[in-house]
Amino acid sequence: MGAIRRIVYAQSGGMTAVINASAAGVIAEAQRRGLTLFAARYGMHGLLAGDLIAVPPLSAEQLQRLSYTPGGIFGTARRDLPDPEIDATPYDLLFQVLAHYDIDALLYNGGNGSIATVAQIDREAKRRGIPLTVIGIPKTIDNDLEGTHFSPGYPSAARYLITSFLEASLDLASFPAKGARAFVMETMGRNAGWLAAAVKAASAVLADEGPHLIVLPEMRWDKTALLAAADAAIARTGYCTVVVAEGATLDGEPLAYQGAEKRRYVQLGGAGSVIGGWLRDALGAKVHVAVPDYLQRAAAHWVSAVDHRVAWQVGETAVAWADEGTRSGVMVGVVRDPATSGWRMEAVDAATVGNRERRFPASWIAAPFQVDSAFLDYLLPLLEGCPQIPCGAHGLPDFFPFATLTERSDAP
Amino acid sequence: MGAIRRIVYAQSGGMTAVINASAAGVIAEAQRRGLTLFAARYGMHGLLAGDLIAVPPLSAEQLQRLSYTPGGIFGTARRDLPDPEIDATPYDLLFQVLAHYDIDALLYNGGNGSIATVAQIDREAKRRGIPLTVIGIPKTIDNDLEGTHFSPGYPSAARYLITSFLEASLDLASFPAKGARAFVMETMGRNAGWLAAAVKAASAVLADEGPHLIVLPEMRWDKTALLAAADAAIARTGYCTVVVAEGATLDGEPLAYQGAEKRRYVQLGGAGSVIGGWLRDALGAKVHVAVPDYLQRAAAHWVSAVDHRVAWQVGETAVAWADEGTRSGVMVGVVRDPATSGWRMEAVDAATVGNRERRFPASWIAAPFQVDSAFLDYLLPLLEGCPQIPCGAHGLPDFFPFATLTERSDAP
Repeated sequence: MGAIRRIVYAQSGGMTAVINASAAGVIAEAQRRGLTLFAARYGMHGLLAGDLIAVPPLSAEQLQRLSYTPGGIFGTARRDLPDPEIDATPYDLLFQVLAHYDIDALLYNGGNGSIATVAQIDREAKRRGIPLTVIGIPKTIDNDLEGTHFSPGYPSAARYLITSFLEASLDLASFPAKGARAFVMETMGRNAGWLAAAVKAASAVLADEGPHLIVLPEMRWDKTALLAAADAAIARTGYCTVVVAEGATLDGEPLAYQGAEKRRYVQLGGAGSVIGGWLRDALGAKVHVAVPDYLQRAAAHWVSAVDHRVAWQVGETAVAWADEGTRSGVMVGVVRDPATSGWRMEAVDAATVGNRERRFPASWIAAPFQVDSAFLDYLLPLLEGCPQIPCGAHGLPDFFPFATLTERSDAP
Repeated sequence: MGAIRRIVYAQSGGMTAVINASAAGVIAEAQRRGLTLFAARYGMHGLLAGDLIAVPPLSAEQLQRLSYTPGGIFGTARRDLPDPEIDATPYDLLFQVLAHYDIDALLYNGGNGSIATVAQIDREAKRRGIPLTVIGIPKTIDNDLEGTHFSPGYPSAARYLITSFLEASLDLASFPAKGARAFVMETMGRNAGWLAAAVKAASAVLADEGPHLIVLPEMRWDKTALLAAADAAIARTGYCTVVVAEGATLDGEPLAYQGAEKRRYVQLGGAGSVIGGWLRDALGAKVHVAVPDYLQRAAAHWVSAVDHRVAWQVGETAVAWADEGTRSGVMVGVVRDPATSGWRMEAVDAATVGNRERRFPASWIAAPFQVDSAFLDYLLPLLEGCPQIPCGAHGLPDFFPFATLTERSDAP
């Protein structure tokens, strides 16, 4: 204890609905330990440009409010660092900034790339003999981080997608069997199908309303089989529901290429529209396609209670470890304690987990177009509990109005 | 009181998140008055086929659970009746079914077309000298019904869209100003822009996070002006947020035609992708497009407290009026009581309001691409209050498992 006095916290990569719960955990724990806390504006941009702000004291009520606010309260960035042997410039800049602010510890909140950055900075600081503690805080809706039971952000996006899909399925089920109908929902997930697979849990609420077809990037399949499965679902129930990951591929090609006229449209996703078009053309179904896009990763109004609590906890833990001064170059990994069904934190070597990608396990893929219900034994504990989401004026959310959100800097 | 003994209730048209709150109101009030209640399976299909079910007694807890379940619990249909002078067959069928079940009153829960059907059935019953009470219960997410302060279903879809848009906007605001970004959300609304306009209320939560551009079917505009407005937003804030109704038109043509290669894709909407494509091509913005589709009308997990209460109340009122036996051929209209900020119900002539369409008022359109904040004086009271949404096992919704949802009939 007491090894450090001044910490900087930075947010990195794409957002989650609970990244600010991690920020709240960092702030709460730093306040509790009497540490001086800075935040980098727009993540790595702020770290390199010296754009750091002193985090003001926040009340318990303000911290709660912040923890239920989506987006990145201090701003985020997508920016990896080069190999220092090829280009040391950003490291020179970074260490100058940290020295200028007299920072002892850097807490970096991000996904695969960001955890790799944690390892890079830690190694380069050690090489230069700079006494800096660097700790990674995990975060990604994709759940593709190694070294942690789940990635904070994933359970909330999953809870949102499961609920939304279930609701839309009940809407669809309201119509008579005659006149085939189909509903397709496209989830995020470029390479890993965790989010699309999560929708399987709809069947845990109403047995008949799980997705008829699940299409993951990890699956190999063909169009004929998909149409046959959809046709069978329509014959059985009068309708067909499909969840497809944006990164689903067919014969090794992203699905969106198959139907888009122009390759530049691929950025939008489009896997859902492609499958929707097939169902309409081949089966004559009346098709609806939902693309929640950002909505699924920003849905603070429907976070998972476990996710919210653990996201807070990984933030707290990073500060505690930094203050203890015994670890660096590590990520806060989440471990499930089967005995208590609770969660504890464990240090994981950032160099080992950074830039790796945990894809949806083959053992949970139940062919064709289904995931095994054993996956639910993993998923459902991540969703437990009923969070009391704060509700503000006019029945609308009561979000934390942080300056970064209103006064945008033109960061480098 | 006591004029009738046996009632049938039917759901019609597209679903809302609170139509089953109206069903719960009907059931609760019928139970309270000791009336025998039937429900038609799949709306008009069941009424014409004699597919009626006796509604079992439900506990207060079951009614609450039902009221927070999306979809149409008894099944719905889209089916209008012809002019009886041209084709009397369906009326013959309908009156036979009602006579067979000895029904005194028909409660019909739907939108514009369904309220027109209420007027048609009432008129034809009177012409034939059949003593039948026919009452319409309003419902549509589009808010385009005349004769009611708002349409049950609209406030909940609006609350969902406002919240979702706000959350996505905060996500977008997290990124540095450099590198233009855009977010486009496409709402439902073929002819009326009430849903897209509602998103304006995001600015009531965080002043800077209202949509930069709002595009309604009721607006006249051109592409150059839209791109200039988007460019100005990006210059000011680094990003641009757009909400567009699926029915937005340009030079009198649906927007989706402008960009789709094939007309058969129009059914999917696509207005959002068209505008997204423009922003990417003309401004070089990195664009995300969200299409919530069914999610917005089925989002029982985020209903408006006012909407839920009033939806229940219009159901109760229809039963009360039927039991009193003094009205027929009317719709339950919702009236706002400015003195109490509460809501009372008023009978509205179904023949007068049926098949009419209340579009978004021109007086609330603030050119260009904005709606007047005076609209919020109308909208915000529809969202007041913080409903305690039931939460079931695994933190997921606790929906009512009604037989219709699992045992689908192949109704005519």
